Amino acid sequence: MANKPSIPKGTRDFGPEEMAKRNYIFDTIKSVYALYGFRQIETPAMETLQTLMGKYGEEGDKLLFKILNSGDYLKSVPDEELKDRNPLKLQTKLCEKGLRYDLTVPFARYVVMHREELQMPFKRYQIQPVWRADRPQKGRYREFYQCDADVVGSDSLLNEVELMQIIDTVFTKFGIRIQIKINNRKILSGIAEVIGEQDKIIDITVAIDKLDKTGLDNVNAELRENGIAEEAIEKLQPIIKLEGTNDDKLATIAEVLKDSEVGLKGVEELRFILDTLKQTGLKNEIQLDLTLARGLNYYTGAIFEVKALDTQIGSITGGGRYDNLTGIFGLPGLSGVGISFGADRIYDVLNTLDLYPKDSIDATKVLFINFGDKETAYCLPIAARLRTAEIRTEVYPDKAKMKKQMTYANAKNIPFVVLAGDNEMAEGKVTLKNMVTGEQSMVTPDELMSIVKE
Amino acid sequence: MANKPSIPKGTRDFGPEEMAKRNYIFDTIKSVYALYGFRQIETPAMETLQTLMGKYGEEGDKLLFKILNSGDYLKSVPDEELKDRNPLKLQTKLCEKGLRYDLTVPFARYVVMHREELQMPFKRYQIQPVWRADRPQKGRYREFYQCDADVVGSDSLLNEVELMQIIDTVFTKFGIRIQIKINNRKILSGIAEVIGEQDKIIDITVAIDKLDKTGLDNVNAELRENGIAEEAIEKLQPIIKLEGTNDDKLATIAEVLKDSEVGLKGVEELRFILDTLKQTGLKNEIQLDLTLARGLNYYTGAIFEVKALDTQIGSITGGGRYDNLTGIFGLPGLSGVGISFGADRIYDVLNTLDLYPKDSIDATKVLFINFGDKETAYCLPIAARLRTAEIRTEVYPDKAKMKKQMTYANAKNIPFVVLAGDNEMAEGKVTLKNMVTGEQSMVTPDELMSIVKE
Repeated sequence: MANKPSIPKGTRDFGPEEMAKRNYIFDTIKSVYALYGFRQIETPAMETLQTLMGKYGEEGDKLLFKILNSGDYLKSVPDEELKDRNPLKLQTKLCEKGLRYDLTVPFARYVVMHREELQMPFKRYQIQPVWRADRPQKGRYREFYQCDADVVGSDSLLNEVELMQIIDTVFTKFGIRIQIKINNRKILSGIAEVIGEQDKIIDITVAIDKLDKTGLDNVNAELRENGIAEEAIEKLQPIIKLEGTNDDKLATIAEVLKDSEVGLKGVEELRFILDTLKQTGLKNEIQLDLTLARGLNYYTGAIFEVKALDTQIGSITGGGRYDNLTGIFGLPGLSGVGISFGADRIYDVLNTLDLYPKDSIDATKVLFINFGDKETAYCLPIAARLRTAEIRTEVYPDKAKMKKQMTYANAKNIPFVVLAGDNEMAEGKVTLKNMVTGEQSMVTPDELMSIVKE
Repeated sequence: MANKPSIPKGTRDFGPEEMAKRNYIFDTIKSVYALYGFRQIETPAMETLQTLMGKYGEEGDKLLFKILNSGDYLKSVPDEELKDRNPLKLQTKLCEKGLRYDLTVPFARYVVMHREELQMPFKRYQIQPVWRADRPQKGRYREFYQCDADVVGSDSLLNEVELMQIIDTVFTKFGIRIQIKINNRKILSGIAEVIGEQDKIIDITVAIDKLDKTGLDNVNAELRENGIAEEAIEKLQPIIKLEGTNDDKLATIAEVLKDSEVGLKGVEELRFILDTLKQTGLKNEIQLDLTLARGLNYYTGAIFEVKALDTQIGSITGGGRYDNLTGIFGLPGLSGVGISFGADRIYDVLNTLDLYPKDSIDATKVLFINFGDKETAYCLPIAARLRTAEIRTEVYPDKAKMKKQMTYANAKNIPFVVLAGDNEMAEGKVTLKNMVTGEQSMVTPDELMSIVKE
């Protein structure tokens, strides 16, 4: 019983300082989502395995945390199967629920279940933890928060524009300089179509991505190694060497893809998004990047990714357009587009760049020192007045040594300390000590109110 | 695959309206906790079963949701045990983690693990979901939020006083009239001691609780049926008939318990708390109630419970003092005292009494109607200006029928709609429609800003 307690690997406790920082991140993101008319929903931590299984690939199925059925969970398992000891097969008998793996599948499930009551287009945001039985490592946890916003039920590219504005606004508020990368799945499909290599699109983007590091010859060599035909490599040259402004790039791509309907559709979509963003004006740069190939399994249109410019931390936000979000649950024809802020990485970036606001918004402002019952009885009504004025106030609960109480004030960064002994009580006053300047003076309760209120 | 999706029984989705109400509840409670210097922490949803098991009684152990180990969870199970089919025994092999059952045990575990870095007394609050494999029924869920505040590392009764003030302030903010009931475990122990019936304390409180309904004779009869000696029942008479002010009651109890050290200690504690609360002034009534016997397994001092006066819904908040909070994890000597707001029941009370604020704080204020690409290009920079001024603004993404767009505005309770066609664009203006009054007029973007800002 008295073993040293621990928490499951890959999980974390968040103490008061960390929570203040995390709340700053979540509150900022929430306020921007709301600024664009997104509304919050929450879904249960547990979903049925029927909802979760088969949505994240075979590997994803393995990474789902499954919940043992209550009661006699062995009841429906035949002796045969027990003896077989096949963990994958058996788990479907032992478990019918799992912990959510992301917020997108529960959202799709939510939309299908509540479609009658939802006003389309439905703009929702959701900030909740997800769980994955991944091998824990630096920066990768088994429990972490996702901060998603999605629009469902609208094909308009204005949604993509708006999501880019949201990203721009959020990181401007954080003071993090970013580069937004954008691509379009249809352009990648067009490239594959034009060069006749439908299944090599990942190989191609991986090879092209190395241009800056290894040079053109090596990129072409890698393409050859991947079995891409000489003629196809020839056609790819303008795309490998793609440079200039976004407009320049789009013109080059349109030329290469002139025979691909889907490819040109992708060019047109991207052009609309980039042109429209010029009108609204972004504070951060947005760059067309053909090597951006995240989520190819599900994204069908725009693909986004955000990188912080002043630290090397990889992607801190991502997203894209996925047609037929709810088809997996029997409701076809609803397109979605969304983004997801990586709260844990943003947390690290804000720490690294020292960008957190200096004043924690919910810290205590005034501490009354406890000299004993009589003095406390004198202080309590004054403390109550401060709180009525919404001033965060503590009365030290124990009659501890003065030094201990001052240490407490310092540890909690409390800017004002109030002391009241016989002198103060006789005069109907208190001594107010400013913990920053060290100044102290006797003041009336009214004066105390007006000083600490500032 | 295309089966109708569902969620696990006893769990809930929260849509935008529900979330706005829930956030109102959580934000109110948070702000009051912060007003008294409590700081937020969060702990993982999953705890080791070593942390959880044996803390909630045998029944509680059964109600824990256990998480199947990842990978080959059968590896370490001998054939023998598989054949045995003993679900209780087997689950300790199959699972090493469970979902948290409450916030108190994780808090105790947190305090022990982080004791070196915590400034005592440590005042923390925690608002997170907990999970219990209870049989779902009306008002009882398998996933629900707890909103706890606890002080650990201080024996001072000022903490109890402060928690009563917090309860009083929170419900005053909600506009819910309440009665706070308070008791003390030591008084109950004293009663048991004086009448020589240590193990009958629950029977006694249950019987006394029926006085109003069944009358004195029936209460005494029930005590007799429960095997309480005639002499003991005689001694109990003043306590059964307890009435008057809290002071009157305390005087009577002190007389009955004059030979019980622990009992008198309880009287003294309660007297201090009630006297001190008179000085600070509560808006709601606090009443000493000896029949209040919640949490007798763990509370060692004060016991609190809150009931709403204007609806019949049972307890909406509770708490108490528990000595040796962290002893179960090998750190003896730390006393704690805490309260827990029942968010789900408060939600119901606010609904029943129609006490939610009328204006949702994060609703969209302005919707731009979409007449097509050209018009939208004209509107987007104006929308961007509104957002820069923190005005929650949407641009309808699709060029849908006017009626559909107005329906959207109405469904989301958006108070202002902006329309811009050829006329408006020619004059550099927009038409602003007030959805509440029906008024509409052509205004400049500057005028628009100042009107909707109000």
